Amino acid sequence: MTEIPDPLSPEALAGLVATALVRHGAGDAQAAAVGRTVAAAERDGAESHGLFRLPGYVASLRSGKVDGAADPELTSPAPAVLAVDARLGFAPLALELGIPALVERARETGIAALAVRNCFHFAALWPEVEAIAERGLVGLAMTAATPMVAPAGGAKPFFGTNPLAFAFPRADGSVMAFDQASAAMARGDIMIAARDGAAVPEGVGIDPQGRPTTDPAAILAGAQLPFGGYKGASIALMIELLAGAVAGDLFSIEAGAVDNGDGGPPRGGELVIALDPDRFGHGTAWRGGSEAFLEQLLAIEGTRLPGSRRNVRRAQALTQGITLSPVNRAALTDLLA
Amino acid sequence: MTEIPDPLSPEALAGLVATALVRHGAGDAQAAAVGRTVAAAERDGAESHGLFRLPGYVASLRSGKVDGAADPELTSPAPAVLAVDARLGFAPLALELGIPALVERARETGIAALAVRNCFHFAALWPEVEAIAERGLVGLAMTAATPMVAPAGGAKPFFGTNPLAFAFPRADGSVMAFDQASAAMARGDIMIAARDGAAVPEGVGIDPQGRPTTDPAAILAGAQLPFGGYKGASIALMIELLAGAVAGDLFSIEAGAVDNGDGGPPRGGELVIALDPDRFGHGTAWRGGSEAFLEQLLAIEGTRLPGSRRNVRRAQALTQGITLSPVNRAALTDLLA
Repeated sequence: MTEIPDPLSPEALAGLVATALVRHGAGDAQAAAVGRTVAAAERDGAESHGLFRLPGYVASLRSGKVDGAADPELTSPAPAVLAVDARLGFAPLALELGIPALVERARETGIAALAVRNCFHFAALWPEVEAIAERGLVGLAMTAATPMVAPAGGAKPFFGTNPLAFAFPRADGSVMAFDQASAAMARGDIMIAARDGAAVPEGVGIDPQGRPTTDPAAILAGAQLPFGGYKGASIALMIELLAGAVAGDLFSIEAGAVDNGDGGPPRGGELVIALDPDRFGHGTAWRGGSEAFLEQLLAIEGTRLPGSRRNVRRAQALTQGITLSPVNRAALTDLLA
Repeated sequence: MTEIPDPLSPEALAGLVATALVRHGAGDAQAAAVGRTVAAAERDGAESHGLFRLPGYVASLRSGKVDGAADPELTSPAPAVLAVDARLGFAPLALELGIPALVERARETGIAALAVRNCFHFAALWPEVEAIAERGLVGLAMTAATPMVAPAGGAKPFFGTNPLAFAFPRADGSVMAFDQASAAMARGDIMIAARDGAAVPEGVGIDPQGRPTTDPAAILAGAQLPFGGYKGASIALMIELLAGAVAGDLFSIEAGAVDNGDGGPPRGGELVIALDPDRFGHGTAWRGGSEAFLEQLLAIEGTRLPGSRRNVRRAQALTQGITLSPVNRAALTDLLA
């Protein structure tokens, strides 16, 4: 039986997750990339994207839906466009291939896009946008999913939770990033509330009859609602069209139709955009200007920057290590057996 | 005295607006572009961006804040980046110069960005994204403004209303577009409610003491709120950083600080992005796929596409002409005198 240290470093956790995935059929490269992604979420206190997802990754290997040995391929269909064909593997390895190339291209062209296709995705998006901003550029990322969110005016699931992530480089080398579902609440958080028997706030979703409810199980059977009413629905729709039609992959309704229901990640594409502010013809004064802007924002009582809680959790994990919850420790132990 | 027909065509209205602007100091090209923009808003039933804005345009000419004869200049600081220096003129002429060049560039590079700088802007953004989608590409646009919206957790105006516009080309040559403020309600609509003595819904804003209110005058003196809570605030922040830092122009707090309070448009940049889905390496099947997707969305009871009301109003105006409100007719008559 594999021993799980307590606490353990993000690297150690990534290694254990990779080992578990290899035991269930993944190749080393795919497993290592998913391991890094899952460990980053645990490190950052993002429970709903951490070990909570591991049984789903394993299920999709067992069912044969995902090719755990897929070798993603990078191409450039246009001067400012890159594409990674994930070849039906998981998203993280495809992104680890595509993001450095995207940054390099955006430094040449000023703005560039990366379409990740034919992958299975249910990770957070902040790792890829942070990787762009850590290299000094501005990053945007979005992905669709399977039907979970009702459109404006409708009562049936149609959009995915369709997250939008954004990251901006800070003068001290750190990054300001947000990663937010177009749904009022992330699916994973509703799943955790259902698991724990907790209610969710009003406005999060509707039951199968279209009635407002705070029961997470009823919402999972019914439909989630977009954040901010029709404006959040507009953003969900935009993400379907950018990550589906433009990137060249499935809409959420298509991904839902082809999914085998194994509980693993759905098929779906991702669109990532990188912008190099240094190439917009106004020098580098934007660096100091944006720092002054963010300082003025923080000078207002009650404000904080997006991602600040994540950064605090991360700093703690990097110095003190990660302590797994009993549920996660048991699940990981089980999958390592 | 100039005769105003009733009804009148959008072209006739554009011409009258241009005439009024020339009478108050604008050059022909700047006046014609603003005229087209104002007339398009009236044509589309967007009262808060139509003739309602004309006194502001005139005020900014009278005060000397805006150079009504400015000749915008187009450059390309990077292979996928264009920039228009508006030379302290109004935004519409700068956009009419930049958008066709942006579309041409995005057809070459797959994705391209246009930064419009040193302009004065208070028009809607759907004209520029529609112009992109009418040429078969996908368009995104955003701009900051002056401080009007409280950040997440704060009670003071900091962000502009910071609209985000998106347009997608339909198979029949039409366009699906949205243009939505990051604020819960567009500033212009709150101004109109204040003018008319009407209340606004809860969640639109807070009074100068930070208390929730439905009094539009109190909100105009206090702060607007973002749509959807902290998620809308994240989008407002992203737009500040993209239209300010990346595009190379002012943040809303800077634009507010330099404004002379003449009631005209504030200084500020705009970032426009065009994507050519044909250049993403997956052929043209996205056209049929996105049509099927939108049809499935419309098949859900209660749904409609963003911009559908605008398209209905536009079709009416194009066949029946535009009938000005008595207030607008009087104001235009006055400015033409």
